[in-house]
Amino acid sequence: MKILTLNCGSSSAKYMVYDWDAREIMCKGIVERVTIGGSFCEHEVTGRDKVKIERECPTHKEAVNLILELLVSPEYGVLKDVKEINAVGHRVVHGGEKFNKSVIIDDGVLQVFKEIQDLAPLHNPANILGIEAARSILPDVPHMAVMDTAWHQTMKPPQFMYAVPYEWYEKHKIRRYGFHGTSLLYVAKRAAVLLGKDPFEVNLISLHIGNGVSANAVKKGVSFDTSMGFTPLEGLVMGTRAGDHDPALDFYMMQKLGLSPKEIDNILNKKCGLLGITGKYTDRRDVLKAMKEGDERAKLAFEMECYRIKKYIGAYAAALGGVDAIVWTAGVGEMAADIRARAMEGLEFMGIKFDPEKNRLARTRNSESDISAADSKVKIFVIPTDEELVFVEDVVALLENRYDVHTNFKYSFQDPAYRNKMRDEQFAKELQKNPDLIKAKAKIPGQTD
Amino acid sequence: MKILTLNCGSSSAKYMVYDWDAREIMCKGIVERVTIGGSFCEHEVTGRDKVKIERECPTHKEAVNLILELLVSPEYGVLKDVKEINAVGHRVVHGGEKFNKSVIIDDGVLQVFKEIQDLAPLHNPANILGIEAARSILPDVPHMAVMDTAWHQTMKPPQFMYAVPYEWYEKHKIRRYGFHGTSLLYVAKRAAVLLGKDPFEVNLISLHIGNGVSANAVKKGVSFDTSMGFTPLEGLVMGTRAGDHDPALDFYMMQKLGLSPKEIDNILNKKCGLLGITGKYTDRRDVLKAMKEGDERAKLAFEMECYRIKKYIGAYAAALGGVDAIVWTAGVGEMAADIRARAMEGLEFMGIKFDPEKNRLARTRNSESDISAADSKVKIFVIPTDEELVFVEDVVALLENRYDVHTNFKYSFQDPAYRNKMRDEQFAKELQKNPDLIKAKAKIPGQTD
Repeated sequence: MKILTLNCGSSSAKYMVYDWDAREIMCKGIVERVTIGGSFCEHEVTGRDKVKIERECPTHKEAVNLILELLVSPEYGVLKDVKEINAVGHRVVHGGEKFNKSVIIDDGVLQVFKEIQDLAPLHNPANILGIEAARSILPDVPHMAVMDTAWHQTMKPPQFMYAVPYEWYEKHKIRRYGFHGTSLLYVAKRAAVLLGKDPFEVNLISLHIGNGVSANAVKKGVSFDTSMGFTPLEGLVMGTRAGDHDPALDFYMMQKLGLSPKEIDNILNKKCGLLGITGKYTDRRDVLKAMKEGDERAKLAFEMECYRIKKYIGAYAAALGGVDAIVWTAGVGEMAADIRARAMEGLEFMGIKFDPEKNRLARTRNSESDISAADSKVKIFVIPTDEELVFVEDVVALLENRYDVHTNFKYSFQDPAYRNKMRDEQFAKELQKNPDLIKAKAKIPGQTD
Repeated sequence: MKILTLNCGSSSAKYMVYDWDAREIMCKGIVERVTIGGSFCEHEVTGRDKVKIERECPTHKEAVNLILELLVSPEYGVLKDVKEINAVGHRVVHGGEKFNKSVIIDDGVLQVFKEIQDLAPLHNPANILGIEAARSILPDVPHMAVMDTAWHQTMKPPQFMYAVPYEWYEKHKIRRYGFHGTSLLYVAKRAAVLLGKDPFEVNLISLHIGNGVSANAVKKGVSFDTSMGFTPLEGLVMGTRAGDHDPALDFYMMQKLGLSPKEIDNILNKKCGLLGITGKYTDRRDVLKAMKEGDERAKLAFEMECYRIKKYIGAYAAALGGVDAIVWTAGVGEMAADIRARAMEGLEFMGIKFDPEKNRLARTRNSESDISAADSKVKIFVIPTDEELVFVEDVVALLENRYDVHTNFKYSFQDPAYRNKMRDEQFAKELQKNPDLIKAKAKIPGQTD
């Protein structure tokens, strides 16, 4: 079975073809500069070099056409015929309050997305364009929507409501939605496996730290609270997003600089976070390097990011009344040992104690790590996320009519015997280079590995 | 020695005359509707009924004149001559970054207040008008400024900086300032006394909960972080202020409702918080009563307020690496046992365990309470605040040329032997009615009481 996934942004279209039977990505890529002129596609077949194809895509329809053309091209393709595609999974950033799980897209579902599209004006309109284009080009194949917000629909009003006029919720749907749900679902289920517990018995704090950053309090296996809010602007310090701050400063700066709501929103999303503090860096590797070379503002950015992660760990530990595990994931969470160490410093009083050597060793996307100290009450895991797998499993299960919300559904990776062969092979190579890495490798209770 | 204190708002002027030698408030009052027509003064001499005097005050100068007239009036006065006033203390809400302690106001100081007045446009311009009026009417008396922000000037950049463009700090002074400093200083010093420790040895989380709400992380006796930010809008759920939320929702609502920056700022400060959630209540007593009568939105408001306090307790405990005591203060913090109980539920894992009976009993402004369970690692105190005392001590010490920043100054109430006689007398009366109250009374180490 072959699944095409599509993730359309305002001027881009990301895609992937996944071979479900082999559990392998066949190819992936992105069409950039859609609608704005000078568009091109970067296309990568697994095991081969990336290629760049230039082609004007005045609308998303041309972009989807280009993608399908590439998939079956003799030179760059991975399929003989587009009919080999069994289903298309569309990433939809904002599912609003209507969806707590992935769905098959029909006209009714599409209508709901259109009704809520101004909740995520940067993302949803493009998602919808992508769905419409793909449905018109591949009308005989089922299309599914996988939403970033679905995982968080278990949140209750005291956690998801804001202390603003109640009618803003009733009339304008103002509430906390939360994002990064696909990744957070994956790591929550995996953490339960590593704890040797039923997924609905565990309390977790998951830290998805990439360019965007989400903290997630997981109570008895479901999302209880999360740091991103009405939009992905709220919460932790991110690559270019401000995260938590006094909104009054925004109104002050709007007046000082004569900015419109859209302009200040744009600055807060694109010119703030690490970029705002340092003036030049969004990549944590650059921040860390500059800090070590004596750059004071890079040092400040590092300290601010870590301090605010630490505060969320404390806040969510209190919210949950104690936790079984802290989970670090996504590019930075998986790799940046310095950030993890600084953020968890001094938390021994709440039972959180990491092993410095294991933490330093845990820098791989190919192995799950347990970086807890032997006497830590709380386990600390580094779990490479796998959003693609959740995505594809949802689509396949929907296609096979056996899908349900995660509380009534079992993913392949919830099984203690689950292995990701490709990652295992990569890790075996890493181990050959550095046998110490085995010290940080997480053990699955009851499994010999 | 007699001290006049003045606290001028945009259309009001609060005042108090304090007899330093007797440690007593002689009279206090407020002139309302200054500059807007229909102004009147509510004036209260200690031990006598409140009186209301109507008098037009087109500017703050007339209001200050009215106050001085009342102070020496044969019918309502407490002084024979205004010359009995030894100094005037002015409350200044926002002291910016220049002041970490109270100061004698000279032309240079006034100029600094003028330069930063748009940081607190609702407060500082009126504070300045009050200072100018009082100086012109009482030119021969020293005038001092006591600032809400001064206590928090020990915060370091990782705590006070926002992840916004760095030049906003450099050019526009955008940073966290924090407020409620006078109250937070008082309870921090008192908590050290109750712990039997040097004030610079204690880690505390202070919760000043009134209509406005501040959480304060105190590290080794100085302010380390606080929930209010650039303005008093940020942080916890308040009577009418939204506190923490995704600023993107503000820009969304500005566009939906066609609001200017000033208009949305006004809504977030005056129509949100408990009022926004319930649609009608700002007073916690009303919220609790309605909740007990089945009002769902009152219940939601209660749960949101307590949940967010709980998150700050956790966040600051993590920030401090553990705490010696949690301190509840101000009207709600001192009286609302239900809120304290709900907010501290489930924090045993971090050593915080309250005694339910003591918590229920601790509902007085006349006694300091220790509501910790016998086996709580962290002490939990309810400390009635006394901003007036800090205010007056600063003014008197400035006048006597022996004042300094709190790290180099000893307040009377830092002495374990310090007693507030008036409160002690009131508490003795309360005890006669309910002898159980003694169970919650805090003991001062080394003192027989």
